[in-house]
Amino acid sequence: MDKNRDVTAIVKPYNKTIVTASNRVLLDVLRELEIPIRSECGGVGECGKCKILLTGGISTPPTYAEKRFFSYEELSRGYRLACRVRLLEGVFEVSIPPESILQRYKSADIGFEKPTELLPALRKIFIVLPRATLEDVRADFERIIDKIKDYINPNTIDIDVIQKLPETIRLNDWSVTVTTWYDRKIIDVEAGDTRDKLYGLAIDIGTSKIVLHLVELTNGNTLAIESIPNPQASYGADIISRLTYALQSEDNLKRLQETVIKAINIAIDRMLSRTNIPKNHVYEAVVVGNTVMHHLFLGIQPKYLGYAPYVPAIAKSLAIIAKDLRMSIHRNGIIYMLPVIAGYVGSDALADAIAIDIENCETPCMLIDIGTNSEILLNTGKEIYACSTPAGPAFEGATTSFGTRAVAGAIDQVFIYFDSSIQDFAVQYHTIGKRKPIGLCGSAMIDVIAHLYRLNIIDSRGRFSKEIKSRRIIKNNNTYSFILVWGNETEIKRDISINTKDINEILLAKAAIASGIRILIEHTRLDYTDIQKIYVAGSFGTYMNVENAITIGLLPKIDPKKVEFVGNTAISGAKMCLKNIEIRRKAEELARKIKYVELSAYQLFNKIFIESIPLPAF
Amino acid sequence: MDKNRDVTAIVKPYNKTIVTASNRVLLDVLRELEIPIRSECGGVGECGKCKILLTGGISTPPTYAEKRFFSYEELSRGYRLACRVRLLEGVFEVSIPPESILQRYKSADIGFEKPTELLPALRKIFIVLPRATLEDVRADFERIIDKIKDYINPNTIDIDVIQKLPETIRLNDWSVTVTTWYDRKIIDVEAGDTRDKLYGLAIDIGTSKIVLHLVELTNGNTLAIESIPNPQASYGADIISRLTYALQSEDNLKRLQETVIKAINIAIDRMLSRTNIPKNHVYEAVVVGNTVMHHLFLGIQPKYLGYAPYVPAIAKSLAIIAKDLRMSIHRNGIIYMLPVIAGYVGSDALADAIAIDIENCETPCMLIDIGTNSEILLNTGKEIYACSTPAGPAFEGATTSFGTRAVAGAIDQVFIYFDSSIQDFAVQYHTIGKRKPIGLCGSAMIDVIAHLYRLNIIDSRGRFSKEIKSRRIIKNNNTYSFILVWGNETEIKRDISINTKDINEILLAKAAIASGIRILIEHTRLDYTDIQKIYVAGSFGTYMNVENAITIGLLPKIDPKKVEFVGNTAISGAKMCLKNIEIRRKAEELARKIKYVELSAYQLFNKIFIESIPLPAF
Repeated sequence: MDKNRDVTAIVKPYNKTIVTASNRVLLDVLRELEIPIRSECGGVGECGKCKILLTGGISTPPTYAEKRFFSYEELSRGYRLACRVRLLEGVFEVSIPPESILQRYKSADIGFEKPTELLPALRKIFIVLPRATLEDVRADFERIIDKIKDYINPNTIDIDVIQKLPETIRLNDWSVTVTTWYDRKIIDVEAGDTRDKLYGLAIDIGTSKIVLHLVELTNGNTLAIESIPNPQASYGADIISRLTYALQSEDNLKRLQETVIKAINIAIDRMLSRTNIPKNHVYEAVVVGNTVMHHLFLGIQPKYLGYAPYVPAIAKSLAIIAKDLRMSIHRNGIIYMLPVIAGYVGSDALADAIAIDIENCETPCMLIDIGTNSEILLNTGKEIYACSTPAGPAFEGATTSFGTRAVAGAIDQVFIYFDSSIQDFAVQYHTIGKRKPIGLCGSAMIDVIAHLYRLNIIDSRGRFSKEIKSRRIIKNNNTYSFILVWGNETEIKRDISINTKDINEILLAKAAIASGIRILIEHTRLDYTDIQKIYVAGSFGTYMNVENAITIGLLPKIDPKKVEFVGNTAISGAKMCLKNIEIRRKAEELARKIKYVELSAYQLFNKIFIESIPLPAF
Repeated sequence: MDKNRDVTAIVKPYNKTIVTASNRVLLDVLRELEIPIRSECGGVGECGKCKILLTGGISTPPTYAEKRFFSYEELSRGYRLACRVRLLEGVFEVSIPPESILQRYKSADIGFEKPTELLPALRKIFIVLPRATLEDVRADFERIIDKIKDYINPNTIDIDVIQKLPETIRLNDWSVTVTTWYDRKIIDVEAGDTRDKLYGLAIDIGTSKIVLHLVELTNGNTLAIESIPNPQASYGADIISRLTYALQSEDNLKRLQETVIKAINIAIDRMLSRTNIPKNHVYEAVVVGNTVMHHLFLGIQPKYLGYAPYVPAIAKSLAIIAKDLRMSIHRNGIIYMLPVIAGYVGSDALADAIAIDIENCETPCMLIDIGTNSEILLNTGKEIYACSTPAGPAFEGATTSFGTRAVAGAIDQVFIYFDSSIQDFAVQYHTIGKRKPIGLCGSAMIDVIAHLYRLNIIDSRGRFSKEIKSRRIIKNNNTYSFILVWGNETEIKRDISINTKDINEILLAKAAIASGIRILIEHTRLDYTDIQKIYVAGSFGTYMNVENAITIGLLPKIDPKKVEFVGNTAISGAKMCLKNIEIRRKAEELARKIKYVELSAYQLFNKIFIESIPLPAF
């Protein structure tokens, strides 16, 4: 057995594959893949929470710890503790049972991320300085520069670093660690050797949700994830209502900015306190978001994003000192805004494109990031096009009767069928976190509409059939609704149902996305059948049933195998740019390369939109 | 008597009233009220300059220190030292006599300045942008950059400029003026054509005095000058007492910084309101000062400047964004700190060297900048040396009985002779501003001592002759004094005199400077006769009588024609660097070239210093 040989592990249900060195502890491999696996004891075989099912390949035999947690039968079926087993040889399938997954991290807060070599903008240099003497009266700062100038030649230093410099360099016997950004700015000088304290953040500011990842930049590990609702939603659920609020007064704009920064800071502080990391060791945050979120976060008046020709104030990347935004990281740290592509295609879409490496996909390929504002990217093989379509927050539960975000208790999968034993329709559903249902998230809406349509309960325009009778179909003031869950089964103690208006909201939202897809296809003179791959990104995509999405016309009629859910690639793209400045540089180039297609400038837009509303024939 | 009770103090002539806790030191109360009261010793009862007249209420009894400075009669009238008395109970009236007030300076605020070509770091570019259309959706910022990139390629812009960019470019029909710094940072973008609004500041922060010049950078004109006492003087007249105050606590350091910035801002605002220029059009301030002033202005702990080997925290030039120092110019403007040369040779000395172009003077030449801390520069023809000598504030009136700064009412020239008609000595004098005398400034001290010495009234050690009789010579407790102005001629209604102790203070101060000169000469193996030119800089030099300065040994025995007064060259050097970045670059090079000689490391320093105290034979 050659211990230097590589082994292959395929991780279910994440469908992540890794080829890695033999003899590694599986838990480390899973962490590298950012599988949110539980490990309360920290990987010492004490808690038994990192249970997995391992098949194929040759692994180390069960340890005493594993025999404590599993029966003989379980062990023989392949149940192991990820922290105890090492993969020795071959190809493995690793299944993570639901109970081993960290429930706090809703899977929608992570996304597909290409393995990224570490090459951060930040660098820590530890130096031991010669002491000042009457023969060597160089100033403190010059003493440091003279020592590091062979490697790097920083030309910027913040005044507060200089202010404490005399004390710092004398605190630990003239040994200091210099933290630099892009080798040109000194962010901090600390006493002693702090090279192992180097952290950064990736932040995706969505219209409805903000996701943050805390990354250890000495090894690339993600230490903590936070996902919070965007509190600006109180000032309008969608982009346009927030724009409208912002342009009413400078105060409103300021309020929107402060609201989002405050919420982000609370989330950061929570991550830092959980991981016991002081904010002074977080030196950079790479931030992405759609262009309106980008502007509001920076306090830029987004007014002109609301009027044709919808131009941003600035598109290029920006490096802002943390204190100027009052962000809760090192005060001289950098808030790095990835470039936006256009007024309605933001840096989140750019991050999507980076995460799936759209430049090198098997072409033609498409990426659809479904959110309150949905972005569509298309690489034709020659050029990359982008458009944006205001789907609105219907898929995020905002405009429907029982809509909810993908939180615990949200129904995320629904199956409706005719149960001949009761001679009525029956409903099976799945909720997030195995809780009692509180409402329907976007993927459930798609399932419901697809099933109601297939069962002829509704027609292609979403109108309820007058012929079909069911205990579940209620008519009230000329409005129909279909009861999905009876009140006694729900957390909210009311029937959870969907009505004609809800269906219409979803149809309008899917029409917005579908017409965006169609216009990009037509604009580039392609055909749907040309598309080799559709990546579906966005927190919502993770649970979506592809067939049902095709049934309702949200996705074009292509082979479902060509559709891949990539999760929150905005955050993973941001994280890749945090970890590697070469990728960051490529992102900047890509932002300039992508050709923006303004749908509202497209002559046939209205016609195509209206044609996209009905459910397609099946 | 309840020590927790409040007391009330009404301060005249300011008519400020404060109700404060009982038992506080009056000086602290006055500082809190921002009364510009003198306190050369920093509030330790040593200098006697914080005289006030206290009436009403119950205060602590006179201390020993107060008994040294006041007669019994004065004490009974209510004369006290603000630093010694505490207010215990009741309502007080505190009168601040004119001689206890830090006065605004009238002259000596300008210096020799070589004609300087205009080549500022600032540039204004007026552009008319193509409007955004659906065919040209470039972002606002990129639209600007595309227009100016043929000239310059700035890579930094402050977030608040971007915040208002969308409104700015649309305000005046897509025409804007871009203000850049070193062609790389965009300080501002304004609507319309504002190219004629371009101003900068030169600021010299002296230990005792701060001088500011407001310069129009489109034509090089100086529009306004302000000269204010350095309000840090309330925390100690000289560098060492301020150092001592600063190192006691971070709060003290912060207070010193805030105090000086506040005073500078008030002076700036006064200049701007006088010239009707909005602060948003002042984009840069070039600041010089000795190294301690430099550190205190920047809030850098100057502690280690007080201990061998006296190294600064930073020597190189620094560009700090105005808002980070809360300076009253454009908030994104630049505060440009010229480099310092060493712990006790600051950027003020560098500015001196630039103003007189020491690199190209007829060599060997010397520059002496006389101040509380005096700097001496020597160009031997091959190399340039610098040293610093703590003359103390004696020449600025701090440590002598009737000493005062060169303010209105200060006697600045004195001539003493034997008037045979009255068979006694007579005194002619000149006051600044033709006011009634309030005291003696440094140049008058030099005149007085030179005359007393020539007239054999004092000997080479400053001791009064016991033989010479005069109505003006008073003996009191074994201390002699010489009355220069009778009380009825003065503003202060008391005789203005000089006593043995005063003479000693001056002799010590001149010994400090003279020994610095001598050590530099010896160190470079030159002879006094080699020196082709001595430039005397500093506000005090303007009035100085060269022959008298040579008589007392302040200046070496050289041909008086070789001595040239150049005034406040610190401010003119700063101004040259404001106007021309080529000169600024040369200044930076020069700072690295100048060889610093640490007097305290010089073996024979003490011997030379002691030898320099007596008046030289004539």
